Amino acid sequence: MDDNAAFLQRLEALRAGVDRRLAELAPCAATAPDRLADAARYALLAPGKRFRPMVTLLAAAEFGAPEGAALDVACAFEMIHAASLILDDLPAMDDAGLRRGLPTIHRAYDEATAILAGVGLLNHAYAVIAAAPDLPGNLRAELSARAARAVGFSGLIAGQARDLFDRDRARDLSALERLNHEKTGVLIIAAAEGGALVAGAPQAAVEAMGVFARHIGLAFQIRDDLIDAQDCAESAGKDVGKDAGMTTIVSALGVAGARRAMDEHLGKAETALARVGAGALLGRYVGGFFAGRKAAA
Amino acid sequence: MDDNAAFLQRLEALRAGVDRRLAELAPCAATAPDRLADAARYALLAPGKRFRPMVTLLAAAEFGAPEGAALDVACAFEMIHAASLILDDLPAMDDAGLRRGLPTIHRAYDEATAILAGVGLLNHAYAVIAAAPDLPGNLRAELSARAARAVGFSGLIAGQARDLFDRDRARDLSALERLNHEKTGVLIIAAAEGGALVAGAPQAAVEAMGVFARHIGLAFQIRDDLIDAQDCAESAGKDVGKDAGMTTIVSALGVAGARRAMDEHLGKAETALARVGAGALLGRYVGGFFAGRKAAA
Repeated sequence: MDDNAAFLQRLEALRAGVDRRLAELAPCAATAPDRLADAARYALLAPGKRFRPMVTLLAAAEFGAPEGAALDVACAFEMIHAASLILDDLPAMDDAGLRRGLPTIHRAYDEATAILAGVGLLNHAYAVIAAAPDLPGNLRAELSARAARAVGFSGLIAGQARDLFDRDRARDLSALERLNHEKTGVLIIAAAEGGALVAGAPQAAVEAMGVFARHIGLAFQIRDDLIDAQDCAESAGKDVGKDAGMTTIVSALGVAGARRAMDEHLGKAETALARVGAGALLGRYVGGFFAGRKAAA
Repeated sequence: MDDNAAFLQRLEALRAGVDRRLAELAPCAATAPDRLADAARYALLAPGKRFRPMVTLLAAAEFGAPEGAALDVACAFEMIHAASLILDDLPAMDDAGLRRGLPTIHRAYDEATAILAGVGLLNHAYAVIAAAPDLPGNLRAELSARAARAVGFSGLIAGQARDLFDRDRARDLSALERLNHEKTGVLIIAAAEGGALVAGAPQAAVEAMGVFARHIGLAFQIRDDLIDAQDCAESAGKDVGKDAGMTTIVSALGVAGARRAMDEHLGKAETALARVGAGALLGRYVGGFFAGRKAAA
Protein backbone atom coordinates (compact mmCIF):
# COMPACT_ATOMS: atom_id res chain seq x y z
CA MET A 1 0.00 0.00 0.00
CA ASP A 2 1.47 3.38 -0.91
CA ASP A 3 1.85 6.18 1.58
CA ASN A 4 -1.22 8.05 0.41
CA ALA A 5 -3.48 5.01 0.64
CA ALA A 6 -2.16 4.35 4.16
CA PHE A 7 -2.90 7.94 5.16
CA LEU A 8 -6.42 7.78 3.76
CA GLN A 9 -6.97 4.53 5.61
CA ARG A 10 -5.82 6.12 8.85
CA LEU A 11 -8.21 9.04 8.29
CA GLU A 12 -11.07 6.69 7.58
CA ALA A 13 -10.33 4.73 10.76
CA LEU A 14 -10.42 7.96 12.78
CA ARG A 15 -13.67 9.02 11.13
CA ALA A 16 -15.27 5.66 11.76
CA GLY A 17 -14.14 5.88 15.39
CA VAL A 18 -15.91 9.23 15.71
CA ASP A 19 -19.09 7.72 14.27
CA ARG A 20 -18.94 4.79 16.70
CA ARG A 21 -18.37 7.02 19.68
CA LEU A 22 -21.10 9.46 18.61
CA ALA A 23 -23.53 6.55 18.46
CA GLU A 24 -22.55 5.60 22.03
CA LEU A 25 -22.74 9.13 23.39
CA ALA A 26 -26.00 10.05 21.65
CA PRO A 27 -29.25 9.82 23.61
CA CYS A 28 -31.14 6.56 23.16
CA ALA A 29 -34.52 5.18 24.22
CA ALA A 30 -33.07 4.28 27.64
CA THR A 31 -31.93 7.84 28.34
CA ALA A 32 -34.51 10.05 26.60
CA PRO A 33 -38.12 10.00 25.41
CA ASP A 34 -38.23 7.70 22.32
CA ARG A 35 -39.19 10.22 19.71
CA LEU A 36 -36.67 12.77 20.97
CA ALA A 37 -33.86 10.20 21.04
CA ASP A 38 -34.77 9.08 17.51
CA ALA A 39 -34.76 12.62 16.22
CA ALA A 40 -31.47 13.53 17.88
CA ARG A 41 -29.82 10.40 16.49
CA TYR A 42 -31.27 11.10 13.05
CA ALA A 43 -29.63 14.51 12.99
CA LEU A 44 -26.37 13.64 14.75
CA LEU A 45 -25.61 10.32 13.11
CA ALA A 46 -26.55 11.20 9.52
CA PRO A 47 -23.50 10.52 7.35
CA GLY A 48 -21.06 13.42 7.37
CA LYS A 49 -17.37 14.11 6.98
CA ARG A 50 -16.99 14.89 10.71
CA PHE A 51 -14.68 17.73 9.80
CA ARG A 52 -14.63 19.38 13.23
CA PRO A 53 -13.93 16.23 15.25
CA MET A 54 -11.31 15.21 12.70
CA VAL A 55 -9.58 18.55 13.21
CA THR A 56 -9.63 17.98 16.98
CA LEU A 57 -8.25 14.45 16.71
CA LEU A 58 -5.53 15.39 14.23
CA ALA A 59 -4.50 18.46 16.21
CA ALA A 60 -4.27 16.27 19.32
CA ALA A 61 -2.19 13.72 17.40
CA GLU A 62 0.12 16.40 15.99
CA PHE A 63 1.07 17.39 19.53
CA GLY A 64 1.46 13.86 20.86
CA ALA A 65 -1.80 13.16 22.70
CA PRO A 66 -2.35 9.46 23.42
CA GLU A 67 -4.75 7.86 20.97
CA GLY A 68 -8.33 8.32 22.08
CA ALA A 69 -7.57 11.09 24.60
CA ALA A 70 -9.43 13.68 22.54
CA LEU A 71 -12.22 11.45 21.23
CA ASP A 72 -15.03 12.62 23.50
CA VAL A 73 -14.06 16.26 23.14
CA ALA A 74 -13.99 15.78 19.37
CA CYS A 75 -17.48 14.26 19.49
CA ALA A 76 -18.71 17.21 21.55
CA PHE A 77 -17.72 19.55 18.72
CA GLU A 78 -19.69 17.43 16.27
CA MET A 79 -22.70 17.64 18.60
CA ILE A 80 -22.44 21.41 18.67
CA HIS A 81 -22.15 21.47 14.90
CA ALA A 82 -25.18 19.20 14.47
CA ALA A 83 -27.15 21.40 16.90
CA SER A 84 -26.26 24.52 14.95
CA LEU A 85 -27.40 22.92 11.68
CA ILE A 86 -30.72 21.84 13.22
CA LEU A 87 -31.39 25.29 14.59
CA ASP A 88 -30.24 27.19 11.47
CA ASP A 89 -32.53 25.01 9.32
CA LEU A 90 -35.69 25.74 11.36
CA PRO A 91 -38.69 27.34 9.68
CA ALA A 92 -38.15 30.54 11.68
CA MET A 93 -34.53 30.66 10.48
CA ASP A 94 -33.41 29.40 7.04
CA ASP A 95 -36.46 27.14 6.56
CA ALA A 96 -34.36 24.46 4.88
CA GLY A 97 -35.87 21.24 3.60
CA LEU A 98 -32.79 19.14 2.94
CA ARG A 99 -29.62 18.53 4.94
CA ARG A 100 -26.92 15.93 4.40
CA GLY A 101 -29.09 14.44 1.68
CA LEU A 102 -32.04 13.86 3.99
CA PRO A 103 -35.15 15.81 4.96
CA THR A 104 -34.29 18.28 7.71
CA ILE A 105 -35.24 17.15 11.18
CA HIS A 106 -38.20 19.52 11.53
CA ARG A 107 -39.65 18.02 8.34
CA ALA A 108 -38.86 14.41 9.22
CA TYR A 109 -40.25 14.92 12.76
CA ASP A 110 -41.76 18.27 13.69
CA GLU A 111 -40.62 21.71 14.72
CA ALA A 112 -40.87 21.26 18.49
CA THR A 113 -38.93 18.00 18.32
CA ALA A 114 -36.29 19.66 16.16
CA ILE A 115 -35.86 22.53 18.63
CA LEU A 116 -35.61 20.16 21.59
CA ALA A 117 -33.17 17.87 19.78
CA GLY A 118 -31.03 20.84 18.72
CA VAL A 119 -30.95 22.38 22.18
CA GLY A 120 -30.45 18.90 23.65
CA LEU A 121 -27.43 18.15 21.47
CA LEU A 122 -25.83 21.49 22.27
CA ASN A 123 -26.41 20.88 25.95
CA HIS A 124 -25.15 17.31 25.68
CA ALA A 125 -21.85 18.57 24.30
CA TYR A 126 -21.23 20.27 27.65
CA ALA A 127 -22.12 17.08 29.51
CA VAL A 128 -19.63 15.18 27.37
CA ILE A 129 -16.83 17.74 27.81
CA ALA A 130 -17.43 17.97 31.56
CA ALA A 131 -17.17 14.19 31.88
CA ALA A 132 -14.39 13.56 29.32
CA PRO A 133 -12.38 10.66 30.72
CA ASP A 134 -8.78 11.08 31.89
CA LEU A 135 -8.66 14.85 31.48
CA PRO A 136 -7.96 17.03 34.52
CA GLY A 137 -10.80 19.22 35.79
CA ASN A 138 -9.05 22.46 34.90
CA LEU A 139 -8.72 21.33 31.30
CA ARG A 140 -12.35 20.22 31.10
CA ALA A 141 -13.45 23.61 32.43
CA GLU A 142 -11.15 25.38 29.95
CA LEU A 143 -12.49 23.34 27.02
CA SER A 144 -16.04 24.05 28.14
CA ALA A 145 -15.31 27.79 28.39
CA ARG A 146 -13.83 27.84 24.89
CA ALA A 147 -16.70 25.87 23.40
CA ALA A 148 -19.19 28.20 25.06
CA ARG A 149 -17.36 31.24 23.72
CA ALA A 150 -17.42 29.74 20.21
CA VAL A 151 -21.14 29.04 20.35
CA GLY A 152 -22.10 32.15 22.22
CA PHE A 153 -23.43 35.63 21.72
CA SER A 154 -20.19 36.63 19.98
CA GLY A 155 -19.86 33.36 18.05
CA LEU A 156 -22.11 31.00 16.11
CA ILE A 157 -25.22 32.54 17.61
CA ALA A 158 -24.10 36.06 16.75
CA GLY A 159 -23.35 34.92 13.20
CA GLN A 160 -26.76 33.38 12.74
CA ALA A 161 -28.44 36.47 14.24
CA ARG A 162 -26.50 38.88 12.03
CA ASP A 163 -27.20 36.71 9.01
CA LEU A 164 -30.94 36.80 9.74
CA PHE A 165 -31.25 40.41 10.82
CA ASP A 166 -29.27 41.80 7.88
CA ARG A 167 -30.25 39.23 5.29
CA ASP A 168 -31.14 41.71 2.60
CA ARG A 169 -28.37 44.18 3.21
CA ALA A 170 -25.31 44.09 0.96
CA ARG A 171 -22.15 43.62 3.00
CA ASP A 172 -18.63 44.76 2.31
CA LEU A 173 -15.82 42.25 2.28
CA SER A 174 -14.84 42.77 5.91
CA ALA A 175 -18.44 42.37 7.10
CA LEU A 176 -18.69 39.18 5.04
CA GLU A 177 -15.50 37.80 6.54
CA ARG A 178 -16.73 38.63 10.01
CA LEU A 179 -19.98 36.81 9.33
CA ASN A 180 -18.16 33.80 7.90
CA HIS A 181 -15.82 33.80 10.87
CA GLU A 182 -18.75 33.75 13.29
CA LYS A 183 -20.82 31.24 11.35
CA THR A 184 -18.04 28.77 10.62
CA GLY A 185 -14.65 29.83 11.93
CA VAL A 186 -15.23 30.05 15.66
CA LEU A 187 -16.21 26.41 16.08
CA ILE A 188 -13.35 25.11 13.93
CA ILE A 189 -11.00 27.28 15.98
CA ALA A 190 -12.33 25.81 19.22
CA ALA A 191 -12.04 22.30 17.74
CA ALA A 192 -8.43 22.80 16.64
CA GLU A 193 -7.32 24.56 19.84
CA GLY A 194 -9.18 21.92 21.84
CA GLY A 195 -7.14 19.14 20.27
CA ALA A 196 -3.89 20.95 21.05
CA LEU A 197 -5.02 21.62 24.62
CA VAL A 198 -5.87 17.95 25.20
CA ALA A 199 -2.33 17.11 24.04
CA GLY A 200 -0.89 19.58 26.52
CA ALA A 201 0.68 21.58 23.67
CA PRO A 202 2.45 24.83 24.58
CA GLN A 203 0.55 28.11 24.37
CA ALA A 204 2.24 29.11 21.10
CA ALA A 205 1.05 25.89 19.48
CA VAL A 206 -2.50 26.42 20.71
CA GLU A 207 -2.42 29.92 19.25
CA ALA A 208 -1.05 28.65 15.94
CA MET A 209 -3.94 26.18 15.84
CA GLY A 210 -6.25 29.14 16.28
CA VAL A 211 -4.71 31.02 13.35
CA PHE A 212 -4.75 27.89 11.21
CA ALA A 213 -8.39 27.24 12.01
CA ARG A 214 -9.44 30.84 11.50
CA HIS A 215 -8.23 30.70 7.91
CA ILE A 216 -9.62 27.22 7.39
CA GLY A 217 -12.99 28.43 8.58
CA LEU A 218 -12.97 31.32 6.12
CA ALA A 219 -11.83 29.02 3.31
CA PHE A 220 -14.52 26.54 4.31
CA GLN A 221 -17.27 29.13 4.03
CA ILE A 222 -16.04 30.31 0.63
CA ARG A 223 -16.02 26.68 -0.48
CA ASP A 224 -19.63 26.39 0.69
CA ASP A 225 -20.53 29.57 -1.18
CA LEU A 226 -18.86 28.24 -4.32
CA ILE A 227 -20.86 25.02 -4.01
CA ASP A 228 -23.97 27.05 -3.41
CA ALA A 229 -23.36 29.20 -6.46
CA GLN A 230 -22.62 26.33 -8.80
CA ASP A 231 -24.14 23.05 -7.77
CA CYS A 232 -27.63 21.73 -7.80
CA ALA A 233 -29.32 20.63 -4.58
CA GLU A 234 -29.02 16.97 -5.44
CA SER A 235 -25.25 16.83 -5.50
CA ALA A 236 -24.82 19.22 -2.57
CA GLY A 237 -27.10 17.16 -0.31
CA LYS A 238 -28.69 20.29 1.10
CA ASP A 239 -30.74 23.22 -0.12
CA VAL A 240 -28.70 25.45 -2.39
CA GLY A 241 -29.49 28.73 -4.07
CA LYS A 242 -30.75 29.98 -0.68
CA ASP A 243 -28.07 32.65 -0.73
CA ALA A 244 -29.13 34.05 -4.09
CA GLY A 245 -30.49 37.27 -2.64
CA MET A 246 -27.60 37.76 -0.23
CA THR A 247 -24.13 39.01 -0.70
CA THR A 248 -21.50 36.29 -0.34
CA ILE A 249 -17.80 36.25 -1.02
CA VAL A 250 -18.66 34.73 -4.40
CA SER A 251 -21.09 37.48 -5.33
CA ALA A 252 -18.60 40.08 -4.04
CA LEU A 253 -15.49 38.73 -5.80
CA GLY A 254 -16.85 36.48 -8.53
CA VAL A 255 -16.07 32.78 -8.79
CA ALA A 256 -12.43 33.22 -9.78
CA GLY A 257 -11.85 35.88 -7.14
CA ALA A 258 -13.50 33.72 -4.47
CA ARG A 259 -11.30 30.78 -5.44
CA ARG A 260 -8.24 33.01 -5.11
CA ALA A 261 -9.41 34.21 -1.69
CA MET A 262 -9.95 30.60 -0.62
CA ASP A 263 -6.47 29.63 -1.78
CA GLU A 264 -4.98 32.57 0.09
CA HIS A 265 -6.65 31.46 3.31
CA LEU A 266 -5.47 27.91 2.76
CA GLY A 267 -1.92 29.20 2.26
CA LYS A 268 -2.05 31.18 5.49
CA ALA A 269 -3.44 28.16 7.33
CA GLU A 270 -0.55 26.07 6.02
CA THR A 271 1.97 28.68 7.14
CA ALA A 272 0.51 28.69 10.65
CA LEU A 273 0.82 24.90 10.82
CA ALA A 274 4.37 24.91 9.49
CA ARG A 275 5.42 27.41 12.14
CA VAL A 276 4.71 24.85 14.87
CA GLY A 277 5.62 21.76 12.83
CA ALA A 278 2.05 20.49 12.70
CA GLY A 279 1.55 19.95 9.00
CA ALA A 280 2.05 16.20 8.67
CA LEU A 281 -1.46 15.14 9.64
CA LEU A 282 -3.62 18.21 9.88
CA GLY A 283 -2.21 20.02 6.85
CA ARG A 284 -2.42 16.92 4.73
CA TYR A 285 -5.98 16.17 5.83
CA VAL A 286 -7.19 19.69 5.18
CA GLY A 287 -5.37 19.81 1.85
CA GLY A 288 -7.15 16.66 0.75
CA PHE A 289 -10.43 17.96 2.04
CA PHE A 290 -10.24 21.11 -0.02
CA ALA A 291 -8.93 19.28 -3.08
CA GLY A 292 -12.26 17.43 -3.19
CA ARG A 293 -15.37 19.32 -4.23
CA LYS A 294 -18.07 17.39 -2.43
CA ALA A 295 -20.82 18.59 -0.14
CA ALA A 296 -19.89 20.35 3.07
CA ALA A 297 -19.33 18.24 6.16
CA MET B 1 -36.09 45.77 63.40
CA ASP B 2 -37.49 42.41 64.40
CA ASP B 3 -35.88 39.15 63.38
CA ASN B 4 -38.30 38.51 60.56
CA ALA B 5 -37.84 41.93 59.02
CA ALA B 6 -34.06 41.45 59.20
CA PHE B 7 -34.35 38.10 57.48
CA LEU B 8 -36.53 39.51 54.72
CA GLN B 9 -34.05 42.34 54.27
CA ARG B 10 -31.22 39.86 53.93
CA LEU B 11 -33.18 37.90 51.33
CA GLU B 12 -33.95 41.05 49.38
CA ALA B 13 -30.28 42.04 49.43
CA LEU B 14 -29.34 38.64 48.03
CA ARG B 15 -32.01 38.85 45.35
CA ALA B 16 -30.95 42.34 44.35
CA GLY B 17 -27.36 41.08 44.17
CA VAL B 18 -28.45 38.38 41.75
CA ASP B 19 -30.22 40.97 39.60
CA ARG B 20 -27.13 43.18 39.53
CA ARG B 21 -24.84 40.32 38.61
CA LEU B 22 -27.24 39.02 35.96
CA ALA B 23 -27.21 42.46 34.36
CA GLU B 24 -23.39 42.35 34.27
CA LEU B 25 -23.17 38.81 32.94
CA ALA B 26 -25.90 39.20 30.31
CA PRO B 27 -24.90 39.94 26.73
CA CYS B 28 -24.90 43.61 25.77
CA ALA B 29 -24.44 45.62 22.59
CA ALA B 30 -20.66 45.37 22.99
CA THR B 31 -20.69 41.56 23.10
CA ALA B 32 -23.60 40.56 20.84
CA PRO B 33 -25.65 41.85 17.90
CA ASP B 34 -27.88 44.66 19.26
CA ARG B 35 -31.25 43.09 18.73
CA LEU B 36 -30.13 39.75 20.14
CA ALA B 37 -28.60 41.37 23.23
CA ASP B 38 -31.78 43.38 23.75
CA ALA B 39 -33.96 40.31 23.47
CA ALA B 40 -31.80 38.21 25.78
CA ARG B 41 -31.78 40.98 28.39
CA TYR B 42 -35.53 41.43 28.04
CA ALA B 43 -36.09 37.78 28.89
CA LEU B 44 -33.36 37.33 31.49
CA LEU B 45 -33.74 40.57 33.40
CA ALA B 46 -37.55 40.72 33.53
CA PRO B 47 -38.54 40.97 37.19
CA GLY B 48 -38.70 37.56 38.86
CA LYS B 49 -38.26 35.96 42.24
CA ARG B 50 -34.93 34.37 41.19
CA PHE B 51 -35.96 31.25 43.09
CA ARG B 52 -33.23 28.98 41.68
CA PRO B 53 -30.31 31.34 42.31
CA MET B 54 -31.70 32.09 45.77
CA VAL B 55 -31.68 28.36 46.51
CA THR B 56 -28.06 28.14 45.34
CA LEU B 57 -26.97 31.14 47.41
CA LEU B 58 -28.79 30.01 50.55
CA ALA B 59 -27.53 26.43 50.24
CA ALA B 60 -24.00 27.80 49.86
CA ALA B 61 -24.50 30.01 52.93
CA GLU B 62 -25.93 27.11 54.99
CA PHE B 63 -22.68 25.22 54.51
CA GLY B 64 -20.37 28.13 55.14
CA ALA B 65 -19.35 29.34 51.67
CA PRO B 66 -17.80 32.81 51.68
CA GLU B 67 -20.27 35.48 50.59
CA GLY B 68 -20.33 35.81 46.83
CA ALA B 69 -18.57 32.50 46.14
CA ALA B 70 -21.68 30.99 44.57
CA LEU B 71 -23.01 34.13 42.89
CA ASP B 72 -21.99 33.37 39.30
CA VAL B 73 -23.08 29.75 39.58
CA ALA B 74 -26.40 30.95 40.98
CA CYS B 75 -26.80 33.31 38.04
CA ALA B 76 -26.04 30.47 35.63
CA PHE B 77 -29.04 28.57 37.00
CA GLU B 78 -31.24 31.62 36.40
CA MET B 79 -29.95 31.79 32.81
CA ILE B 80 -30.85 28.16 32.27
CA HIS B 81 -34.28 28.78 33.76
CA ALA B 82 -34.86 31.83 31.56
CA ALA B 83 -33.75 29.84 28.51
CA SER B 84 -36.18 27.06 29.32
CA LEU B 85 -39.05 29.54 29.67
CA ILE B 86 -38.22 31.17 26.33
CA LEU B 87 -38.10 27.83 24.55
CA ASP B 88 -41.19 26.37 26.25
CA ASP B 89 -43.17 29.48 25.30
CA LEU B 90 -42.33 29.25 21.56
CA PRO B 91 -45.16 28.92 19.01
CA ALA B 92 -44.04 25.36 18.22
CA MET B 93 -44.23 24.50 21.93
CA ASP B 94 -46.73 26.06 24.33
CA ASP B 95 -47.36 29.11 22.14
CA ALA B 96 -47.61 31.38 25.16
CA GLY B 97 -48.28 35.08 24.85
CA LEU B 98 -47.50 36.33 28.33
CA ARG B 99 -44.63 35.63 30.70
CA ARG B 100 -43.67 37.41 33.90
CA GLY B 101 -46.37 39.96 33.12
CA LEU B 102 -44.85 40.89 29.75
CA PRO B 103 -45.33 39.72 26.16
CA THR B 104 -43.25 36.59 25.58
CA ILE B 105 -39.99 37.24 23.78
CA HIS B 106 -41.13 35.76 20.45
CA ARG B 107 -44.04 38.22 20.46
CA ALA B 108 -42.00 41.20 21.63
CA TYR B 109 -39.26 40.40 19.08
CA ASP B 110 -39.72 37.47 16.69
CA GLU B 111 -39.43 33.73 16.71
CA ALA B 112 -35.90 33.46 15.34
CA THR B 113 -34.63 36.01 17.85
CA ALA B 114 -36.37 34.14 20.67
CA ILE B 115 -34.78 30.84 19.67
CA LEU B 116 -31.32 32.39 19.41
CA ALA B 117 -31.72 34.23 22.72
CA GLY B 118 -32.94 31.06 24.44
CA VAL B 119 -30.16 28.90 23.07
CA GLY B 120 -27.70 31.71 23.75
CA LEU B 121 -28.70 32.04 27.40
CA LEU B 122 -28.48 28.29 27.94
CA ASN B 123 -25.05 28.28 26.33
CA HIS B 124 -23.99 31.34 28.29
CA ALA B 125 -24.72 29.52 31.54
CA TYR B 126 -21.95 27.07 30.68
CA ALA B 127 -19.58 29.92 29.89
CA VAL B 128 -20.36 31.46 33.28
CA ILE B 129 -19.92 28.19 35.20
CA ALA B 130 -16.68 27.37 33.37
CA ALA B 131 -15.27 30.78 34.27
CA ALA B 132 -16.71 31.12 37.80
CA PRO B 133 -14.08 32.99 39.78
CA ASP B 134 -12.18 31.39 42.65
CA LEU B 135 -13.57 27.88 42.13
CA PRO B 136 -11.18 25.01 41.34
CA GLY B 137 -11.37 23.49 37.84
CA ASN B 138 -12.64 20.15 39.09
CA LEU B 139 -15.54 21.85 40.81
CA ARG B 140 -16.38 23.95 37.76
CA ALA B 141 -16.39 20.79 35.62
CA GLU B 142 -18.56 19.01 38.20
CA LEU B 143 -21.06 21.87 38.32
CA SER B 144 -21.17 21.97 34.55
CA ALA B 145 -21.78 18.22 34.37
CA ARG B 146 -24.62 18.46 36.88
CA ALA B 147 -26.22 21.41 35.12
CA ALA B 148 -25.99 19.58 31.79
CA ARG B 149 -27.59 16.49 33.31
CA ALA B 150 -30.41 18.62 34.71
CA VAL B 151 -31.10 20.29 31.38
CA GLY B 152 -30.48 17.25 29.23
CA PHE B 153 -32.27 14.46 27.46
CA SER B 154 -33.29 12.96 30.83
CA GLY B 155 -34.07 16.32 32.44
CA LEU B 156 -35.81 19.57 31.47
CA ILE B 157 -35.68 18.70 27.79
CA ALA B 158 -37.15 15.25 28.40
CA GLY B 159 -39.90 16.83 30.48
CA GLN B 160 -40.82 19.31 27.78
CA ALA B 161 -40.74 16.57 25.12
CA ARG B 162 -42.93 14.23 27.16
CA ASP B 163 -45.29 17.07 27.95
CA LEU B 164 -45.66 17.87 24.24
CA PHE B 165 -45.75 14.34 22.88
CA ASP B 166 -48.31 13.07 25.38
CA ARG B 167 -50.23 16.28 25.85
CA ASP B 168 -53.66 14.75 25.40
CA ARG B 169 -53.04 11.53 27.27
CA ALA B 170 -54.28 11.22 30.82
CA ARG B 171 -51.40 10.40 33.16
CA ASP B 172 -51.44 8.47 36.41
CA LEU B 173 -50.01 10.07 39.52
CA SER B 174 -46.54 8.57 39.16
CA ALA B 175 -46.29 9.68 35.51
CA LEU B 176 -47.37 13.18 36.60
CA GLU B 177 -44.77 13.28 39.35
CA ARG B 178 -42.10 12.14 36.90
CA LEU B 179 -43.10 14.89 34.50
CA ASN B 180 -43.11 17.50 37.24
CA HIS B 181 -39.74 16.24 38.43
CA GLU B 182 -38.27 16.63 34.94
CA LYS B 183 -39.93 19.95 34.18
CA THR B 184 -39.19 21.64 37.49
CA GLY B 185 -37.36 19.43 39.95
CA VAL B 186 -34.12 18.64 38.16
CA LEU B 187 -32.99 22.24 37.86
CA ILE B 188 -33.85 23.11 41.46
CA ILE B 189 -31.92 20.00 42.53
CA ALA B 190 -28.89 21.10 40.52
CA ALA B 191 -29.21 24.61 41.99
CA ALA B 192 -29.40 23.35 45.59
CA GLU B 193 -26.64 20.75 45.22
CA GLY B 194 -24.55 23.33 43.37
CA GLY B 195 -24.68 25.70 46.33
CA ALA B 196 -23.60 22.94 48.71
CA LEU B 197 -20.79 21.90 46.37
CA VAL B 198 -19.47 25.46 46.13
CA ALA B 199 -19.36 25.51 49.94
CA GLY B 200 -17.38 22.26 49.96
CA ALA B 201 -20.14 20.55 51.95
CA PRO B 202 -19.75 16.82 52.62
CA GLN B 203 -21.36 14.31 50.26
CA ALA B 204 -24.20 13.57 52.70
CA ALA B 205 -25.11 17.25 52.78
CA VAL B 206 -25.07 17.48 48.98
CA GLU B 207 -27.38 14.49 48.84
CA ALA B 208 -29.70 15.96 51.44
CA MET B 209 -29.89 19.11 49.32
CA GLY B 210 -30.92 16.88 46.43
CA VAL B 211 -33.73 15.28 48.44
CA PHE B 212 -34.85 18.67 49.74
CA ALA B 213 -34.89 20.14 46.25
CA ARG B 214 -36.64 17.14 44.71
CA HIS B 215 -39.58 17.67 47.05
CA ILE B 216 -39.48 21.42 46.62
CA GLY B 217 -39.62 20.96 42.87
CA LEU B 218 -42.69 18.76 43.12
CA ALA B 219 -44.34 21.18 45.55
CA PHE B 220 -43.44 24.04 43.26
CA GLN B 221 -45.15 22.43 40.28
CA ILE B 222 -48.28 21.68 42.30
CA ARG B 223 -48.30 25.29 43.41
CA ASP B 224 -48.10 26.33 39.76
CA ASP B 225 -50.95 23.99 38.89
CA LEU B 226 -53.03 25.41 41.72
CA ILE B 227 -52.38 28.92 40.43
CA ASP B 228 -53.21 27.75 36.95
CA ALA B 229 -56.47 26.19 38.07
CA GLN B 230 -57.63 29.16 40.08
CA ASP B 231 -56.18 32.45 38.99
CA CYS B 232 -56.77 34.68 36.08
CA ALA B 233 -53.93 35.55 33.72
CA GLU B 234 -53.65 39.08 35.01
CA SER B 235 -52.64 38.17 38.52
CA ALA B 236 -50.49 35.22 37.47
CA GLY B 237 -48.44 37.30 35.04
CA LYS B 238 -48.43 34.52 32.48
CA ASP B 239 -50.91 32.58 30.38
CA VAL B 240 -53.11 30.39 32.56
CA GLY B 241 -55.78 27.87 31.73
CA LYS B 242 -53.35 26.32 29.22
CA ASP B 243 -53.47 23.09 31.18
CA ALA B 244 -57.23 22.75 31.04
CA GLY B 245 -57.17 19.80 28.64
CA MET B 246 -54.30 18.07 30.43
CA THR B 247 -54.12 16.02 33.52
CA THR B 248 -52.31 17.76 36.35
CA ILE B 249 -51.93 16.92 40.01
CA VAL B 250 -54.85 19.28 40.63
CA SER B 251 -57.11 17.55 38.14
CA ALA B 252 -55.98 14.17 39.48
CA LEU B 253 -56.39 14.91 43.19
CA GLY B 254 -58.65 17.94 43.30
CA VAL B 255 -57.66 21.26 44.86
CA ALA B 256 -57.74 20.03 48.45
CA GLY B 257 -55.87 16.84 47.58
CA ALA B 258 -53.27 18.78 45.64
CA ARG B 259 -52.78 21.13 48.57
CA ARG B 260 -52.24 18.13 50.85
CA ALA B 261 -49.74 16.63 48.39
CA MET B 262 -47.91 19.95 48.26
CA ASP B 263 -47.77 20.14 52.06
CA GLU B 264 -46.46 16.58 52.23
CA HIS B 265 -43.63 17.44 49.86
CA LEU B 266 -42.85 20.56 51.85
CA GLY B 267 -42.71 18.46 55.01
CA LYS B 268 -40.31 15.98 53.45
CA ALA B 269 -38.16 18.84 52.17
CA GLU B 270 -38.01 20.26 55.70
CA THR B 271 -37.02 16.88 57.14
CA ALA B 272 -34.18 16.57 54.63
CA LEU B 273 -32.89 20.00 55.61
CA ALA B 274 -33.18 19.28 59.32
CA ARG B 275 -31.13 16.09 58.93
CA VAL B 276 -28.11 18.16 57.89
CA GLY B 277 -28.87 21.21 60.01
CA ALA B 278 -29.59 23.41 57.02
CA GLY B 279 -32.99 24.81 57.85
CA ALA B 280 -32.12 28.25 59.20
CA LEU B 281 -31.86 30.03 55.86
CA LEU B 282 -33.07 27.71 53.16
CA GLY B 283 -36.00 26.24 55.08
CA ARG B 284 -37.15 29.63 56.20
CA TYR B 285 -36.86 31.10 52.71
CA VAL B 286 -38.77 28.27 51.10
CA GLY B 287 -41.39 28.31 53.84
CA GLY B 288 -41.98 32.00 53.21
CA PHE B 289 -42.05 31.43 49.48
CA PHE B 290 -44.78 28.83 49.73
CA ALA B 291 -46.74 30.80 52.31
CA GLY B 292 -47.21 33.50 49.63
CA ARG B 293 -49.55 32.81 46.75
CA LYS B 294 -48.10 35.03 44.09
CA ALA B 295 -47.05 34.23 40.55
CA ALA B 296 -44.34 31.65 39.98
CA ALA B 297 -40.76 32.81 39.92
